[in-house]
Order: sequence, then C-alpha cells, then structure tokens
Amino acid sequence: MKTFADIEGVKCWGVKEGKNGLGIVVCKGRVAAVYTTNRIKAAPVRYNMESLKGEIEGIIVNSGNANAFTGRKGLENAKKMAVLLASRLGCSYDRIAVASTGVIGRQLDTGLIEKMFEEVYSKLSTGKEAAEAFARAIMTTDSFPKLYSAGAGDAVVAGVAKGAGMIAPNMATMLAFIFTDADFEAEELQKMLKEAVDRSFNVTVVDGDTSTNDMVILISTGKKRVGKDAFQHALLEVCVNLAKMMARDGEGATKLMEVVVKGARNEEDAFKAAKAIASSLLVKTAVFGNDPNWGRIIAALGYSGVDVDETITLDFASADGRTVRLLERGVATGEENEAAELLRGTQEIRIVVNLHKGEAEGYAFGCDLTYDYVRINAEYTT
Amino acid sequence: MKTFADIEGVKCWGVKEGKNGLGIVVCKGRVAAVYTTNRIKAAPVRYNMESLKGEIEGIIVNSGNANAFTGRKGLENAKKMAVLLASRLGCSYDRIAVASTGVIGRQLDTGLIEKMFEEVYSKLSTGKEAAEAFARAIMTTDSFPKLYSAGAGDAVVAGVAKGAGMIAPNMATMLAFIFTDADFEAEELQKMLKEAVDRSFNVTVVDGDTSTNDMVILISTGKKRVGKDAFQHALLEVCVNLAKMMARDGEGATKLMEVVVKGARNEEDAFKAAKAIASSLLVKTAVFGNDPNWGRIIAALGYSGVDVDETITLDFASADGRTVRLLERGVATGEENEAAELLRGTQEIRIVVNLHKGEAEGYAFGCDLTYDYVRINAEYTT
Repeated sequence: MKTFADIEGVKCWGVKEGKNGLGIVVCKGRVAAVYTTNRIKAAPVRYNMESLKGEIEGIIVNSGNANAFTGRKGLENAKKMAVLLASRLGCSYDRIAVASTGVIGRQLDTGLIEKMFEEVYSKLSTGKEAAEAFARAIMTTDSFPKLYSAGAGDAVVAGVAKGAGMIAPNMATMLAFIFTDADFEAEELQKMLKEAVDRSFNVTVVDGDTSTNDMVILISTGKKRVGKDAFQHALLEVCVNLAKMMARDGEGATKLMEVVVKGARNEEDAFKAAKAIASSLLVKTAVFGNDPNWGRIIAALGYSGVDVDETITLDFASADGRTVRLLERGVATGEENEAAELLRGTQEIRIVVNLHKGEAEGYAFGCDLTYDYVRINAEYTT
Repeated sequence: MKTFADIEGVKCWGVKEGKNGLGIVVCKGRVAAVYTTNRIKAAPVRYNMESLKGEIEGIIVNSGNANAFTGRKGLENAKKMAVLLASRLGCSYDRIAVASTGVIGRQLDTGLIEKMFEEVYSKLSTGKEAAEAFARAIMTTDSFPKLYSAGAGDAVVAGVAKGAGMIAPNMATMLAFIFTDADFEAEELQKMLKEAVDRSFNVTVVDGDTSTNDMVILISTGKKRVGKDAFQHALLEVCVNLAKMMARDGEGATKLMEVVVKGARNEEDAFKAAKAIASSLLVKTAVFGNDPNWGRIIAALGYSGVDVDETITLDFASADGRTVRLLERGVATGEENEAAELLRGTQEIRIVVNLHKGEAEGYAFGCDLTYDYVRINAEYTT
C-alpha cells in the first residue's frame, strides 16, 4: 500500500524522545481542515483557524503536550512552531499548519521542540519509512501507527492519523492528515472533507469525550485530474479506515465494534441510532464480556431519540462472515449461546439492526469497555 | 427519621426470593407521575400512562424482570398485576400503579407473582420495618435500601427508591415512590413533581443509559394543608437525597461525585455544564484514581455546549469541608498534590466550578467509574 510520503512533492520525518515527539510534513498544496467543536480550543487549533488560507507548504506537529488551556503564551508558542518551519522553507508562517497532542494545561517546552526540529528537518524524505517515522512521532497512547491509502482514478488519497479515544488519558486528541495529488479547488476540498469526516471520524466513539485538539487536515498537491465521485469515494474510504483503526486501538479495547442500522426512516436517524448503540457503556461492557445482551441494545435504541418500536431485527456478525440472528421482527430467537460463542471467537463484532421503518442506513464505529480502559485512565497521573 | 409507612393511611410490605421480589403499598390518594423518555417503554410504564387518572389506591412492584420488550402479553401481565391488588382492595384496576425492574425481554412468571402476592398482602403493615421490607423487595443491583423523608410544615414528604444506574446490568431501572399527607390538587402535584425530578433524578448520572422502566410516582393522601413553597422545598429535598443515594450506590462506585457550576449565564447552562462533567468517563476514572486531572474537567466544560472561556475557577472539596483550589480565573495554582490527598481521604467529592459569566448556578450528581463497574456489567450473563 502506498503512503502519503509516496505522493509526488511530499516529504516527511519524525522523532520521538520518551513522551515527546515531533513530526514534519513538507508539501505544497491547497488545504481544507475540520476542527474540534469543543469551546475550549487548543492554541494550534486557534492558530490554524486564524492563519490558514487555502494554500499551505508544510505541517509541524508535536506530541506529549496539547498546548491547550495555555492562554496567550500558548498561542505565541504555536506561532513559534510555524515560524520555525516557515523560515526554513522561505514561506510566510500562515502557510504552515500546526498541531499538538498530549497533556492539557502546560506550556510547551519550545527549547526541546527546536532541538528535535533540527534532527527531523535534516532527515525529511519520501517513502514508507519516512511516513512511518512521522506516524510514530505523533502517537500518544496509540499502540500502533495509523496509515491508509486509496486510489481515485490516477490519483492517490493517503492519510495518517493518531488517536486512541476522542480524548485520550489527559492527552488530548485525534489528529488526521490526509494528502492527495488530485486536483480540486480548496472550496471543493473543504466540502468533501466535511462530508467524509461526518461519516467516519464523527461516528467513531471510544469514550464520548471530545478533545480540545481534534483536527483533520486535507492537502491537495493538485497534480492529477480525477472525477469528483471517485475522489469523494476514496476520501471516505481513507477516513473510514483510519477511524476504524482508532476504534480498534481504543484505550484498553479488545474488540472493534461496528454498528450498522438499516431500515431507518432517514439517514440522520440511522446514524444517530448507530452512534447511540456504539456509545452505550452497557453495550460496550457486554461486548467485552462476550455477552449477547440484546436488551441493552434495545434500550440504547429506545433512548437514541429515533423512531423505533418493538419490531426490530437484530444480528451479530463476526469478521469471518458468520451471522447469528437474535431478534426477528421483535421476537427473540433464543440463539444467545450461539451469539456468545461468535463473540468469543472474534476481535471484530458487527451489530446489525433493522428498524423496519424505511430504507435509510447508517453506521458507527466503537470498541468494548474493559478493565484496561479504567486502568489506563485512573492510573495515569498528572 | 420517619418513613413513608409512617404516613397515616399508608401500609406496605415486600418479600424477595433470590432475584425476584414483590412489594405492595396500599395508599388512597391523588397521584402524579413522571416516566422514562425512552421510546421503548416497558409494559408497566405504558400501563400506568394509559390507566392512572389522578386517583390511586395502591402500588404493586416486582423486581427481577423488567416486563420490557414483551409485547401485548407483557401489557396483559402488567394489567394482571393491577387486577390482583385491585380485586382485594375492591377498587377498579385503573386505580393501581404497576412497576417492574429487572431483565429486559422476558415474560413475567405470573404464577410466582401470585404466590408472593399472598404472603405480601397478608403482612401489609405500617412503620419502619414495613417500609424497609418494601424497599428491599424492589432492589436489583442496589447494595442498600433507599429511604428518605422531610417535613413540610405539619406535613411529611417521604420517599423510597431503587436504582444503581440509569440502567443497571441488563436490569432496567430507577424507580422512586414518594408519599405525602400534604393536600394539593393532582395537577399541582404533577407540576411540582416534574420540577423536583428535573433538579434531582434527571441530573444524576451513573452510566448515561436511560432505562425502559424509569418511573417516579408521587401520592398525596391530602390530610394536611401546607404552603406550596414549603412543600416544594421538602419534595426537592427528598428527591435530591434519594438521587444522591443512587449515585453513591452506582454500580461499582467508590465515591459520590457532586458537581456544582456557578457563575453561568443562565440556569440551563449551569445544569448542562455540571451534567457534562458528571458524565465524562475521563473525569469519572480520574476521580476513581484520586487524580485531580483538571484538564479533563476543562475539556468536558468545553464540549458541554455552554458559554465558557479560559477564565475558569475550579475547587475540589471533600465531605468534611476541606477545599483545594486548582484554577484561579484560568491560572493553575499547582496544588495538584494537595488535591490528590483530599481525593484519597474522602468518599464524597465536590467539584466546584465558577465560569465567571453570570449569576446562575446548577449541579449534578454522579460517581466514579471503576473496575467493578466493568466487572458487574461484563460478567453479568443473560
């Protein structure tokens, strides 16, 4: 599989020293971005929202410190990071995107960032090794680097992400950077990015906490002309697969949970119902316990706010394609033992609900809630 | 402290055999009720919503089976429970309130209920022992019976509740029954009950899952005339204290968490912000780990949707009145060690936030998220 550092004109690198990392991507192109809806926005989020204006030359990201709730000084430090890279590239600092992830409420150690910058800048390169070095440098509680790419006609869409929760333990953040050589105007890119994010990262739940630092950036070098549909499709494929990697890597998770809701009155209802099931602590703990406890799924559907009644059909399916039906139009099949066995034997569980109310379909991604989630988040000390 | 079974005209009893219990209260009076907002409503909820019409003579409650997602037969069984008690009292069955709590999706064992009915009916009596027998009969994962009373002038307001989560492990339910001898019209009772529930049970979060069976019923025997303000005050006191007992008894909880938000622009914002903090898994796990991780509180405030900025003041306070300030108008005080010590030494933690945006105040009740919550909910087998 190609990586983003295989796209013509893209170079990157990254280093990590203990909990602190620095990654740089150099890439001339048009930019689109989607940011956290949290009212308390981290300094780099605010910096990008104010500075980025359609054209970009590079990205600089640190891990270990979120630069969030850090006031005016935090904003100055975010700009300092941009200037560091801009001065080397000989461009204006408003052509550099900045991102941070880590502990909330501490000022950046800019000396450390400057030191790491020299090493990273000197090693900027193309190819898989470079992409992985960047992907590892921006990890916090992640247990593996997250890279994915898809083709769109002649063009490539390739992304990199980090995140093991909508917010990780005192660490903020889900970050994703997506690159393409497909040629679209910045305005079109923005619209397509928003649509893809709504159907991928925004339907992914680890703990329901939305971070102060979330950021998805899409950059197009504009070298290849491809159809809009093919591009949108590839972009969604990249976003969905990065989102699923985050759910699979959810803090303490042992199982990826994919919820599909069919037969809803409209798409909004379908996605809302799927997200309610994927968010329910009782469903998440049941999945951890390999317990096909469908009463909890029914309860979550009931409080999701969508139009449901008792004529629901419910299937559990495993990664290898086995399916067990638990409810057939509201009637329990009594197949709990078979469903429990299916749960025990898979690390990817699909919960498929048919509401029998219409034709619309939606989905959500999540993971189970385990002892390790509690351990990671209770024992992490500020 | 008086119990509801000390109010003139009130008699009750309850028995429990293994996971199944039955409780009865006999009490002529006016009735007000608030039910779950879950779209999938249990049979007893639907039964009461259709039948109860301002006047009531008794309540019959079973535990161990929620009689939820049980279709037409479930509704017939709820009516059967009402008829059982109505025929002994010589009243119409629409003067009996029915409640159930327990596993979702199984038909009631009406034979068992009839058998237990005889024993309970023969022992109906007044006083503390009777109230406790009823309170224990309706418990599921609760670890203690929940009774509270308050005076309102000459009158008494006394309640009983069960619940260890908005929904317990595959068990549905929070149930509360409140009794008074204060004389008010059914319409006034309804309005005052709604107001008290909104400021007590509805700001209490264990896991965020809203059950199919939630129900709060208020019955007035109408023997005493008291002022409306005094009554409303006593009613709120009873509801708040029963709600706090539920949070303290939250599944696996080791600490009661009380969140107070001051200085909000309006009351709605204040309650919304408090509920967001009390609901955050990251705040709940931090409290379990005795970690004064204020970044998580800030993040929850930020995504709560209320008007906040970085000039927040934040205190942690213990049950015995000690207070540690962590943020002073947005500036960290560095008192994390003192706050951690305070957390370690208390089973009741108050998190007090001042937004400095206005004069309004709100609160919420919750509990920590522990290994035992995961154990209880993952290892419970259907």
